Amino acid sequence: MRKLLIANRGEIAVRIARAAREQGITSVAVYSEADAQAEHVKAADEAVLLGPPPAGASYLDTDKLLAVIVANGVDAVHPGYGFLSENADFAEAVIDAGVTWVGPSPSAIREMGDKVAARKSAQAAGVPTVPGSDGAVSDPDQVRTVVEEIGFPVAIKAAAGGGGRGIRIVEQESELAPAISTAQAEARAAFGSAEVYLERFVPRARHIEVQVFGDGERAVHLGLRDCSVQRRRQKVVEEAGDLRLPESAALGMCESAVALAVAVGYKGAGTVEYLYDETRGEYYFIEMNTRIQVEHPVTEMVYGQDLVGEQLRVAAGQPLSLHQDQLSPRGHAIEVRINAENAAMGFLPSPGTIERFDLPAGPFVRVDSGFVAGSAVAPYYDSMLAKVIAWGNDRPSALARLLRALGELRIEGVTTTADFVESVLRSPEFAAGQFHTTWLEPWMAERTERESVDV
Amino acid sequence: MRKLLIANRGEIAVRIARAAREQGITSVAVYSEADAQAEHVKAADEAVLLGPPPAGASYLDTDKLLAVIVANGVDAVHPGYGFLSENADFAEAVIDAGVTWVGPSPSAIREMGDKVAARKSAQAAGVPTVPGSDGAVSDPDQVRTVVEEIGFPVAIKAAAGGGGRGIRIVEQESELAPAISTAQAEARAAFGSAEVYLERFVPRARHIEVQVFGDGERAVHLGLRDCSVQRRRQKVVEEAGDLRLPESAALGMCESAVALAVAVGYKGAGTVEYLYDETRGEYYFIEMNTRIQVEHPVTEMVYGQDLVGEQLRVAAGQPLSLHQDQLSPRGHAIEVRINAENAAMGFLPSPGTIERFDLPAGPFVRVDSGFVAGSAVAPYYDSMLAKVIAWGNDRPSALARLLRALGELRIEGVTTTADFVESVLRSPEFAAGQFHTTWLEPWMAERTERESVDV
Repeated sequence: MRKLLIANRGEIAVRIARAAREQGITSVAVYSEADAQAEHVKAADEAVLLGPPPAGASYLDTDKLLAVIVANGVDAVHPGYGFLSENADFAEAVIDAGVTWVGPSPSAIREMGDKVAARKSAQAAGVPTVPGSDGAVSDPDQVRTVVEEIGFPVAIKAAAGGGGRGIRIVEQESELAPAISTAQAEARAAFGSAEVYLERFVPRARHIEVQVFGDGERAVHLGLRDCSVQRRRQKVVEEAGDLRLPESAALGMCESAVALAVAVGYKGAGTVEYLYDETRGEYYFIEMNTRIQVEHPVTEMVYGQDLVGEQLRVAAGQPLSLHQDQLSPRGHAIEVRINAENAAMGFLPSPGTIERFDLPAGPFVRVDSGFVAGSAVAPYYDSMLAKVIAWGNDRPSALARLLRALGELRIEGVTTTADFVESVLRSPEFAAGQFHTTWLEPWMAERTERESVDV
Repeated sequence: MRKLLIANRGEIAVRIARAAREQGITSVAVYSEADAQAEHVKAADEAVLLGPPPAGASYLDTDKLLAVIVANGVDAVHPGYGFLSENADFAEAVIDAGVTWVGPSPSAIREMGDKVAARKSAQAAGVPTVPGSDGAVSDPDQVRTVVEEIGFPVAIKAAAGGGGRGIRIVEQESELAPAISTAQAEARAAFGSAEVYLERFVPRARHIEVQVFGDGERAVHLGLRDCSVQRRRQKVVEEAGDLRLPESAALGMCESAVALAVAVGYKGAGTVEYLYDETRGEYYFIEMNTRIQVEHPVTEMVYGQDLVGEQLRVAAGQPLSLHQDQLSPRGHAIEVRINAENAAMGFLPSPGTIERFDLPAGPFVRVDSGFVAGSAVAPYYDSMLAKVIAWGNDRPSALARLLRALGELRIEGVTTTADFVESVLRSPEFAAGQFHTTWLEPWMAERTERESVDV
């Protein structure tokens, strides 16, 4: 690997350029007209203009990207996260052009990108999935059998839905039959298909994910991350280290994730996401992300491994340098995302020019960002300005350090979520580790109410 | 511990303020008139003006500092490094004022501060010292006996000398008698005393030091640091991790250092310095530094321990949280010091106003600094602008990452040693780990010569 195209922007493009530089690989950035002065352009050795914003005419334009690859003698492509990172057709076109794709095979991307196929692969690999009807149900007897097996509460989901849309929760037997009729009618209206399926509903679930890494031959895990603190399914805080999970469940999730990675011949960095049912102590496969994640730094700090560097090495054909018996976690790391959004205005994006951008530093603090003072925050893209990550010997010291770091953060010119994030970290619930995927939004609502009462 | 006075300036004062903040301790900075706008003043919760520069009228004025302690309700003092950090009288005055001294006892500071007493303590604790006459010699028979024991080359040192002054190296028997006469005459002229002593001279020595930590009851070590890359006895590059030492010597140095710390009832962070004789594979105690060192971050990164945080905890009366069997090194870390000096002009200090100050960031890179863009670099103080530290899985990856980090460093307005440091790191000798304490200066001279020939 001599010349790497970074098919992304922002902090992850800077992150990839750094990893390339450390390995003596020339990096080529691409950028939109809105990003001509962006940091990711300066971080790379070369840079090519793709076109105007929004992303469709530049970062997502696969024809333009393939032309850049050919015209610039590029021999590898790193897609980052988002954008084209899980686009199997693009991966395939890159490979067909004789260029290395830094990521898993197009077939693995496709298999894991299809929810039904992914669930089947997981089951075949012995990975627990959410108990449910495994397909559409309509017959009342069939419904009763399934519900007897999975217990209440039950989620009725539209087969053609997704992203949380078309879900109806049923708490008891008497509500079941009418709820299914209503759900079918709603599904037909919303998605054009009345098909619904049933799943166990987990009221107090944690989002736990496993970092895996494979080279096509073998795979390892680098432990777990808790990403349960979410707003509208967007992760707000991520942690690695001491996740307060029963040892058997933690080990089970890690080993299942490796089994799945091995089963699909996985190459590169990937994440197996689970729903962890705190009441039952059980875990269920949700999906596998076939790319590097935003939250990878917490794993890097706890495991002392450079995941992006390893992505480049494995893509270049080197065998995996990671060995399970040599991987051991140390301490705890917490990451928060700082976005250019106005939390008081429903997290309205706050584009503009950054006038001041003082980032935290010092021991065991890491900041990944694609901005500096003077940078423009364009309205076209993801609003994340920086990830602030702190490591500590244990969770309380990591938390204290992260709060110290946030105290050093000064961003002016655009409104950010820094204060909001800090208030989440300072909540007694967060400090005690008492949260699940549906904790944050009611907590915010309650807090807003309390504050308005105080005034 | 509720309110901590930081009796220092620059990056170490910022470092201490961060550690205090993480533990909920209020920090009080002190500053000179030249430092009114300095970062260490902003990093602390409170700040008190001491007086004008130079340091004698402010940072070194113990009466003023004691007055600040009393007037501000301070209950602990961290001296940092340099300045008053190894001033036993000041430590005693602080303790007599009923205030906690973050450091070892005044008696331990005195004992280790006296070269002769320190050598005796080391010998009593079973720590090897440089073979020599152990006291003044003048009688030719006595000289012969000592030299037979220690072998050539021999160093003749003025008893009243120090810091490398008044040293004469003798390579063979025939030169010995006349050299002693000359050395005695020179010693009388230079130091007022003709007393000289003999020591084994180690031509290819490495400066290896052990980080120790004690709580007065027990002590642990946090491995070794190599600080052999020196210019005029000033460390330029420091490393921890894979130091390419025989295991028995490495372990011997660590265990000897702990034995010495235990023998003197050492409390807090300390460093035991050794001369490592690469030819013989032997090590000799040089001295013990009774403070935190500039280079402590490389140890922190390799061991995952917050040494300054632990200093505060132990000083506050908590037992040492570190246990030898739980301390294990991971990977390699390298630190370079970036000074406001002009390497091409004999490292002439380069005071002025920093116009641009872009520091490196990203995975496994740490920068400790007391400056920002706009800061003034005063001529009165140490010229260090920043320490850049990089960690990697092994020495080559730490080095590649440090070079990547230095590539991101942009300092304008003052001349810095960044390019010089980078050229040292890029030398084949450094990459191969082939250096000793007297390597750098001849290397520099040869390089200058080569460059002038090239022109």
